[in-house]
Amino acid sequence: MENGFKIRTDLALEARESVGETQREIRGVEVEESYNEETEVKVTKVMIQTKNAARDLGKPVGTYITLEAPAMLEADEDYHREISEVLAGQLKQVIPNSEAEQSVLVVGLGNREVTADALGPNVVDNLFVTRHVILEYGKAAYNRTKMNLVSSIVPGVMAATGMETAEIVKGVVEQTKPDVVIVIDALAARSTKRLNRTVQITNTGIHPGSGVGNHRSALTKESLGVPVIAIGVPTVVDAATIVNDALEKAAYSSGKPKVFAELNNMYVTSKDIDATIKRLSFMISEAINITLDGEFVEEE
Amino acid sequence: MENGFKIRTDLALEARESVGETQREIRGVEVEESYNEETEVKVTKVMIQTKNAARDLGKPVGTYITLEAPAMLEADEDYHREISEVLAGQLKQVIPNSEAEQSVLVVGLGNREVTADALGPNVVDNLFVTRHVILEYGKAAYNRTKMNLVSSIVPGVMAATGMETAEIVKGVVEQTKPDVVIVIDALAARSTKRLNRTVQITNTGIHPGSGVGNHRSALTKESLGVPVIAIGVPTVVDAATIVNDALEKAAYSSGKPKVFAELNNMYVTSKDIDATIKRLSFMISEAINITLDGEFVEEE
Amino acid sequence: MENGFKIRTDLALEARESVGETQREIRGVEVEESYNEETEVKVTKVMIQTKNAARDLGKPVGTYITLEAPAMLEADEDYHREISEVLAGQLKQVIPNSEAEQSVLVVGLGNREVTADALGPNVVDNLFVTRHVILEYGKAAYNRTKMNLVSSIVPGVMAATGMETAEIVKGVVEQTKPDVVIVIDALAARSTKRLNRTVQITNTGIHPGSGVGNHRSALTKESLGVPVIAIGVPTVVDAATIVNDALEKAAYSSGKPKVFAELNNMYVTSKDIDATIKRLSFMISEAINITLDGEFVEEE
Amino acid sequence: MENGFKIRTDLALEARESVGETQREIRGVEVEESYNEETEVKVTKVMIQTKNAARDLGKPVGTYITLEAPAMLEADEDYHREISEVLAGQLKQVIPNSEAEQSVLVVGLGNREVTADALGPNVVDNLFVTRHVILEYGKAAYNRTKMNLVSSIVPGVMAATGMETAEIVKGVVEQTKPDVVIVIDALAARSTKRLNRTVQITNTGIHPGSGVGNHRSALTKESLGVPVIAIGVPTVVDAATIVNDALEKAAYSSGKPKVFAELNNMYVTSKDIDATIKRLSFMISEAINITLDGEFVEEE
Repeated sequence: MENGFKIRTDLALEARESVGETQREIRGVEVEESYNEETEVKVTKVMIQTKNAARDLGKPVGTYITLEAPAMLEADEDYHREISEVLAGQLKQVIPNSEAEQSVLVVGLGNREVTADALGPNVVDNLFVTRHVILEYGKAAYNRTKMNLVSSIVPGVMAATGMETAEIVKGVVEQTKPDVVIVIDALAARSTKRLNRTVQITNTGIHPGSGVGNHRSALTKESLGVPVIAIGVPTVVDAATIVNDALEKAAYSSGKPKVFAELNNMYVTSKDIDATIKRLSFMISEAINITLDGEFVEEE
Repeated sequence: MENGFKIRTDLALEARESVGETQREIRGVEVEESYNEETEVKVTKVMIQTKNAARDLGKPVGTYITLEAPAMLEADEDYHREISEVLAGQLKQVIPNSEAEQSVLVVGLGNREVTADALGPNVVDNLFVTRHVILEYGKAAYNRTKMNLVSSIVPGVMAATGMETAEIVKGVVEQTKPDVVIVIDALAARSTKRLNRTVQITNTGIHPGSGVGNHRSALTKESLGVPVIAIGVPTVVDAATIVNDALEKAAYSSGKPKVFAELNNMYVTSKDIDATIKRLSFMISEAINITLDGEFVEEE
Repeated sequence: MENGFKIRTDLALEARESVGETQREIRGVEVEESYNEETEVKVTKVMIQTKNAARDLGKPVGTYITLEAPAMLEADEDYHREISEVLAGQLKQVIPNSEAEQSVLVVGLGNREVTADALGPNVVDNLFVTRHVILEYGKAAYNRTKMNLVSSIVPGVMAATGMETAEIVKGVVEQTKPDVVIVIDALAARSTKRLNRTVQITNTGIHPGSGVGNHRSALTKESLGVPVIAIGVPTVVDAATIVNDALEKAAYSSGKPKVFAELNNMYVTSKDIDATIKRLSFMISEAINITLDGEFVEEE
Repeated sequence: MENGFKIRTDLALEARESVGETQREIRGVEVEESYNEETEVKVTKVMIQTKNAARDLGKPVGTYITLEAPAMLEADEDYHREISEVLAGQLKQVIPNSEAEQSVLVVGLGNREVTADALGPNVVDNLFVTRHVILEYGKAAYNRTKMNLVSSIVPGVMAATGMETAEIVKGVVEQTKPDVVIVIDALAARSTKRLNRTVQITNTGIHPGSGVGNHRSALTKESLGVPVIAIGVPTVVDAATIVNDALEKAAYSSGKPKVFAELNNMYVTSKDIDATIKRLSFMISEAINITLDGEFVEEE
């Protein structure tokens, strides 16, 4: 990083690794790791606690939970259901006041027309949306004593709407007054080894320049007035990044990244990205449905 | 109508016809008709001027312009371009202050996943959206001296978002402050003879219970605070309506409409509705693009 | 029928009803009915045994099994799984030699771009296809001792391919030599009460002029050289048919059907046809997967 | 190549370049180049004339025409129309007997569900198909004296059909007896600089292992019995290839390619691949429509 070349990654995990081998001792950063042998899921919790640490890692102060599950790549429905439940467990930890009954707006960022960027819209398609029913008929409509009000929106990308995503979401938040906003986005990773098999949950929201679609405006507690949880999956790696990393790894690198002009606007992705996005979207929808479902709340 | 059965139509033209043969003399309703032999387009302008007339026709006070063009059904690109221009001419008449430079939000109502209801979302897909570019780089980006700021949104349907369409649109209007809102919606007609070959433009906005998707909340100048122009095309007829009309026409009717329970939630549509919706959407997008384009404004 | 107006239906059940009240005694037609209270599925087996009976009903000699399940309309996954199993049970009865290991080609008729006609293509999308794997690696690849070779094709409609469906299917059959062909098609019914909640299975194949898309050429044992099982679901009713039926029912009919020219090329379908087709397609895919799965074969 | 690492490319142009600087003098290979300043299209014709040359380049004996047009990447409709015409001109040179009236089957290879591999199916969607109309009504239906019979098929990929593409196409060819087959496929290139801006036309058909979807079986004059013209556009580069090329270029390469296991099944593509594929498909459809259109034939 010191050479001025900004390796782009939306994953706090990778940002931490890129700082070097001594990362466990970065001041102001606390890390917890756990591994479940049965589900083969590794959970890493990176807590960035000081402004200095935030600056060093290029990520805002907050909590970043990463789930890594290699088998997420496979088309095994039962396994995806398991991961949905692990994900739901983690999600409940970062959603403030998650045991209470609250109103939650889920925002699907990205572009439905660009496969690698369609994660957000696809997640929203499978959500169990309840707000309109509860407002009209009460919780009784679902035969429950406790029930969250779930609403959702796919704001679309600026090139299609002519508006910043933040303008649309802010307008909707002011009209419908949710207690918390959950934002879903496809991410860019630094290395292909985490592609499509890693989920990051953070309570810091979305910051300018992140995501596959490179959204410009922030969706954070500061901008929206309510807590913003972001869920992301890395679906692409910048092609230039991958080549630079390969050069470094091959120990041929002079320390200065090469400029590969022809790799501009190119990305690396998996061959089965279309099917993968569908599976991952469904898995995350399920996780949110489990998290926000009234019965689940009660059973705990 | 007097028998209590409400024949459902979103077309002012049909509402007027349903009142009876003497319709030209309804008090408070002014009608202008014109026919262009070359384009074979019939334009009917119904102006509902009094509250009494509004009550009689079941439509709010305002101007309703209807274009009827039988050839609209055909897959003739050049003809659709012609209709787009006729449509643009009419649109400019109902958009307040249309010769000035203004900010216009286009709203595509309806459900992308339901073919007959996807007109609104499809129209928005083909729009020439400029607001974000002009705000960032000025009109110079388009090399023009006059240029409207065009933005657009597909709010989605309540069953998917958990929010009233009006809540979403109101939020976006308050954040982005357009001068005028144009709303596109698929309509229900009373008779198949106008299906997919009629466009209605009105300055009264959208009212509860209209449209194929039966939106509950109003999108009007009262609810949004800015003028609302609605553009609609009838894409379906209620199946019960069509049967009742057939009975009446066959002179077998006792005057009381039958209840055909099995026709609930059934509609009549054309066999090639999927291709038709694509063509109509493109035609309307083009009309809006022509209307809002800076050069066109100047040339006049 | 005697008045020369051909009420169009692809369902043998409806053809039988249309002949009149004494249908149970039509010579050459045997009927078996059963009702399962738990699943609420009514199964009717119509066996047309003589050429005379075939002529009277306008359907070829053969077996027609109809499953009627009102709840099929609902979005209940578990229920659809149950129906898939009932369907699989019936399917095994009409597939010749179904307990043996054989090669089965599944053909998805219809037009992917026309919602009500997309049943066939959608069913094929969810099939468990095995032929290529078994030919390359043997049954061992699936860890089974018995395994059918399943292949599938979506031939497309004549307007898009320039070829008769039968030409394409015949060519594929001659190259790949399946033991049996299963054809899936969306049907036209006479009455809306069976729409989307009835499945017909027949061992007579597909005959000219049937189906939503009105295929011209036959897919039968005669034309293809192997047994052809057809599975169909009525997804539309001709609009003219529905109006004529209403007139008759209202006892206003003079016995002569009216000609409603404006209803030409119009059909009646349910408002949620897009979602319905997806659900029904998945249900039928599952039924075929269960039927052709090796393990299921063994367990019996 | 001599180091045993097979740089994968479907372009004869790249195969030729990879042999080294002295390529113009490869025995048995003739090369013609032309450049049009107005359209900015470079046409390279590589004729592989001997078996030795074929072995050296890893491409069968035959003619390979490559159009390179950088502006093909831009969303300029008029320019794409121009390229369609240049393409049509070249296509007529490789189609045997193209001035005669003949029957042509167009085959769209690839997977509709995988964006980068959907070129073939999309091209077929926009074709002007005539065979069924001419067989039924004669050329008079199109008011022409000369008219080709055009038919088309999207066979689907083996994972979905359980059949080799060649089995399906061979079956259809035997049934419908076209005079020539045109096959469309998305290709893999070696370098990103040709991605989405190069079209290759060849009279050698499709060979095992080529294409984005890696089809196994050949579609050639030998396998089908009629001449096979292949049209392809490179839409992806293998990620491993791109990294190895970068290493070589950076002069760090030891001559031995690295094995980047994590790049398996990864490819590099452009960020706007979804929109690009639509544009390219339309451009190629138009080229084929122009080539096969009767009037065009006559005007010459």
